[in-house]
Amino acid sequence: MAWATRVCAELLRGGVWLWVSPGEEELVCRGRSCGRARLGLRASASLPFTLSAAASLSHGASLPPAPAPGFPDSWGRHTRTAGPEGPQQPALVNQLQIPSRCCHEVLDSLHPTEVCLVEGGLEKKEESEVDHFGFHTDKTFKQRYLIADKHWKEDGGSILFYTGNEGDIIWFCNNTGFMWDVAEELKAMLVFAEHRYYGESLPFGANSFKDSRHLNFLTTEQALADFATLIKYLKRTIPGARNQPVIALGGSYGGMLAAWFRMKYPHLVVGALASSAPIWQFENMVPCGVFMKIVTTDFRKSGPNCSESIRRSWDAISRLTEKGTGLHWLSEALHLCTPLTESQDVQHLKDWISETWVNLAMVDYPYESNFLQPLPAWPIKVVCQYLKNPNVSDTWLLQNIFQALNVYYNYSGQARCLNISETATSSLGALGWSYQTCTEMVMPFCSNGIDDMFEPHSWNFKEFSDDCFKQWGVKPRPSWIPTMYGGKNISSHTNIIFSNGEIDPWSGGGVTKDITDTLLAIVIPEGAHHLDLRANNAFDPVTVLLARSLEVRHMKQWIKDFYASLGKMH
Amino acid sequence: MAWATRVCAELLRGGVWLWVSPGEEELVCRGRSCGRARLGLRASASLPFTLSAAASLSHGASLPPAPAPGFPDSWGRHTRTAGPEGPQQPALVNQLQIPSRCCHEVLDSLHPTEVCLVEGGLEKKEESEVDHFGFHTDKTFKQRYLIADKHWKEDGGSILFYTGNEGDIIWFCNNTGFMWDVAEELKAMLVFAEHRYYGESLPFGANSFKDSRHLNFLTTEQALADFATLIKYLKRTIPGARNQPVIALGGSYGGMLAAWFRMKYPHLVVGALASSAPIWQFENMVPCGVFMKIVTTDFRKSGPNCSESIRRSWDAISRLTEKGTGLHWLSEALHLCTPLTESQDVQHLKDWISETWVNLAMVDYPYESNFLQPLPAWPIKVVCQYLKNPNVSDTWLLQNIFQALNVYYNYSGQARCLNISETATSSLGALGWSYQTCTEMVMPFCSNGIDDMFEPHSWNFKEFSDDCFKQWGVKPRPSWIPTMYGGKNISSHTNIIFSNGEIDPWSGGGVTKDITDTLLAIVIPEGAHHLDLRANNAFDPVTVLLARSLEVRHMKQWIKDFYASLGKMH
Repeated sequence: MAWATRVCAELLRGGVWLWVSPGEEELVCRGRSCGRARLGLRASASLPFTLSAAASLSHGASLPPAPAPGFPDSWGRHTRTAGPEGPQQPALVNQLQIPSRCCHEVLDSLHPTEVCLVEGGLEKKEESEVDHFGFHTDKTFKQRYLIADKHWKEDGGSILFYTGNEGDIIWFCNNTGFMWDVAEELKAMLVFAEHRYYGESLPFGANSFKDSRHLNFLTTEQALADFATLIKYLKRTIPGARNQPVIALGGSYGGMLAAWFRMKYPHLVVGALASSAPIWQFENMVPCGVFMKIVTTDFRKSGPNCSESIRRSWDAISRLTEKGTGLHWLSEALHLCTPLTESQDVQHLKDWISETWVNLAMVDYPYESNFLQPLPAWPIKVVCQYLKNPNVSDTWLLQNIFQALNVYYNYSGQARCLNISETATSSLGALGWSYQTCTEMVMPFCSNGIDDMFEPHSWNFKEFSDDCFKQWGVKPRPSWIPTMYGGKNISSHTNIIFSNGEIDPWSGGGVTKDITDTLLAIVIPEGAHHLDLRANNAFDPVTVLLARSLEVRHMKQWIKDFYASLGKMH
Repeated sequence: MAWATRVCAELLRGGVWLWVSPGEEELVCRGRSCGRARLGLRASASLPFTLSAAASLSHGASLPPAPAPGFPDSWGRHTRTAGPEGPQQPALVNQLQIPSRCCHEVLDSLHPTEVCLVEGGLEKKEESEVDHFGFHTDKTFKQRYLIADKHWKEDGGSILFYTGNEGDIIWFCNNTGFMWDVAEELKAMLVFAEHRYYGESLPFGANSFKDSRHLNFLTTEQALADFATLIKYLKRTIPGARNQPVIALGGSYGGMLAAWFRMKYPHLVVGALASSAPIWQFENMVPCGVFMKIVTTDFRKSGPNCSESIRRSWDAISRLTEKGTGLHWLSEALHLCTPLTESQDVQHLKDWISETWVNLAMVDYPYESNFLQPLPAWPIKVVCQYLKNPNVSDTWLLQNIFQALNVYYNYSGQARCLNISETATSSLGALGWSYQTCTEMVMPFCSNGIDDMFEPHSWNFKEFSDDCFKQWGVKPRPSWIPTMYGGKNISSHTNIIFSNGEIDPWSGGGVTKDITDTLLAIVIPEGAHHLDLRANNAFDPVTVLLARSLEVRHMKQWIKDFYASLGKMH
């Protein structure tokens, strides 16, 4: 623990700690996250000081991994799957401007994949109505939730409630290090509630996805009602919890749920942190092309000619596959596990490549991570190293594309071939989400090839709806979410923080400007998809540290206001 | 129109007009309501002046009738039925303190039973999803609504939206004169939306009440969603309506819906007037005995020994019916249409009598009216004239009880006998409401015979639930409404007026104190069930005039705020 006595800095007010050391390879910690680092620029004992780029972690002791993307591909189709979390590897540190003061506190490190179930996290289940909004059936199901009370205090404490999204709750729990990082400061009990129809919270067990009759209860309204009844249950049964403020938190679709939960059940949560929640990515609220435009910007800014190379690749693929041997050649060039055999495979291939670029934009984190796939720090920069020259032959360009894809699909070096049926982790509930996009969560996307680097693809609701009916026997209702949750007219609500990473394509459908004094937007310039919900990391850009610090400040204020009004009542 | 040039007074700011004349029998008008009156005390031309009691209307030209009670009997059982609205007849005027100034405006009178469909009211229907919260069925049904735009202005106007409750919407429309009275002042379009499963808005036509499967979509949440989609539809299709503020209004259960609508869909309505809305008459929020206590207070204050006579009547009935000929004697004494034959009929009789006293408390209006039954002004006072002496023999007491009941059931003098299966109008949807009380709308009631004049009757949820299951095949969920709508913890909402009449037993479950600056309580001391939503009447107590005036002032402010924020956006 030698490093504990070294220079350390308290960053802002968010309880974020930074230790730096002048050694060639030393421990760097922020909060509960530590890793050995080679620092490019040594920290000075005279504060504030500057850490500049090019430090790299050689050993990640306890950097909790990233939270869920929360979304399937941008066209509302299935999310594909990838492997579990891997170890931390080389990463880059951005420049930091750190106002700070000395301290000696040392926080324990956590083991990311075990934290939820080993480190004070308890898995529980509670009965919830399958249908909160009808009485024909009074069937219940077991909703899973995780609960951790290591830092919880009855006196002046709080409850942080993660509004689970479309996946296994343990995965979300393990990927929301922010809640673990702030638990002590907020004297908080942590609760992670699993979303119905995901993980183990299946209303009809193995039959849950059987048909539209069994899927009928998979809606945001039912999910929010589950959260409401769970909070009531916890308050009723946990001694000391009754008069405590609850704060909803969530990322991506979980962020939408957190915001909507505060809107619809303000009596149950004093506020919500909705991270990367594209609540406006619905009918007539933002241009359908904004998402792909941001993806393109990320690539354009990550390397010279990068987006242009991708833009040209589509026609190159078309030209190549028009030839007799083109499919075979391309299958070889891209090392596909399953060769392309017919012309319709070409569109499938293009969709898969598009989705890869989209996913890279979502997980363009400043350090090595394993979110949808194991990836290096700033993965788009790495990808773009292979895409510097658009003015090459079609075959050359596609060979470069392969190198780029290989960064995403084979960073571990273990892959023997690329599988165009998969793009992301299996912890996401692809089936359920596909159904949700075909019912309530109808998010229009499009591209035009001019403002973005993709092939033109208009939003065709009719076609989308027909596909949904074929697949699920249901018809989407695109205007329902805005009717239910207010669309852009939400100013009468209070205490919601909408945080967005500017490089996250989902920020295009998010709230990125303050709406009122208590409906706040936090924009993280270097942030990818809900970076702020990830655990503190030595290589976080300062903007996300600032964001977290602001978030904690607001949460503290909500808690304070709650106790103040409680005091008035007594 | 000679009376138009006579003394007239503008009362307060609510657009309420009063004309008085010194003639023996003259027209008295307030707003659109006129009637000929014999004034006991002449009005003075020097203002302000006082009108004292004992004027009686001999001819009611256009006093729109009263709004709906909104509720079944106090035990959550069926509401029984009575006849349609009748003409206005002799009434008493309370003392009025009127600050006023002269004017010459004359307003047209309206014909109460025709106003909704003849006077600018248009009946329409619009498709709504049978299940807003599930996608297994995409069946729609035709929701009926009434719309009147005579006074609507595109420039600076508003939309007053009645959130229909458990009955035929035409009946509510004809019984909510307040909206018609303020339409011109607020440049308002009036919309009366029928609640699903009532009137003609039946999701499955004649099969709607067939079984719990067909009834599955009868919930408050579905009803609110209907209102939401209707408002969106109207804004989309009526030129000029798009950028107009909508205000929700409702009485009784409709008042709950108005309040809940503002809570859940604040993006669609700028505020709500929830009249006599007992949103707290649910699990653990108010003592279950408060309702019967208020009924008792009404009787105690309306005549000497009145409540005591009723209190003693129950044992008298028991003693009388213990004897061999008691059932026969009592059937004769009470002029029952169907004689009592077995001992269990006695409880049925007592329930029916109890419900009669309850209904009288709800409709204890200051002027002759026909709400649940045709009744004189201040009907409890009339009833109590027969119940002055509790210290008489059992037979004498029951003969007095008959006289009292006869006031309620036979004011018209047409009844040949009393039918213990009926207590109120047939415009209420008894079946639907019975189902609702057996599912979501579980309102505990009790009596103890000490704080109230009724026989002791504890709230037995188990028994209630078993009865519900027998009758409907469903189990009530008593804690759902508080979970969904916030119970007593609603302070984060804004712009809701809760008005309650102090003599209305439903005020016991209502909001009678301001919660915040924008969640306001208005209490009308002389008010019975949602008196303020009734049309202006020459014999309204001044407190209800004041209440309406305040309500209008707040609605104007909401409208003003809406246009101010709209201006900021452009």
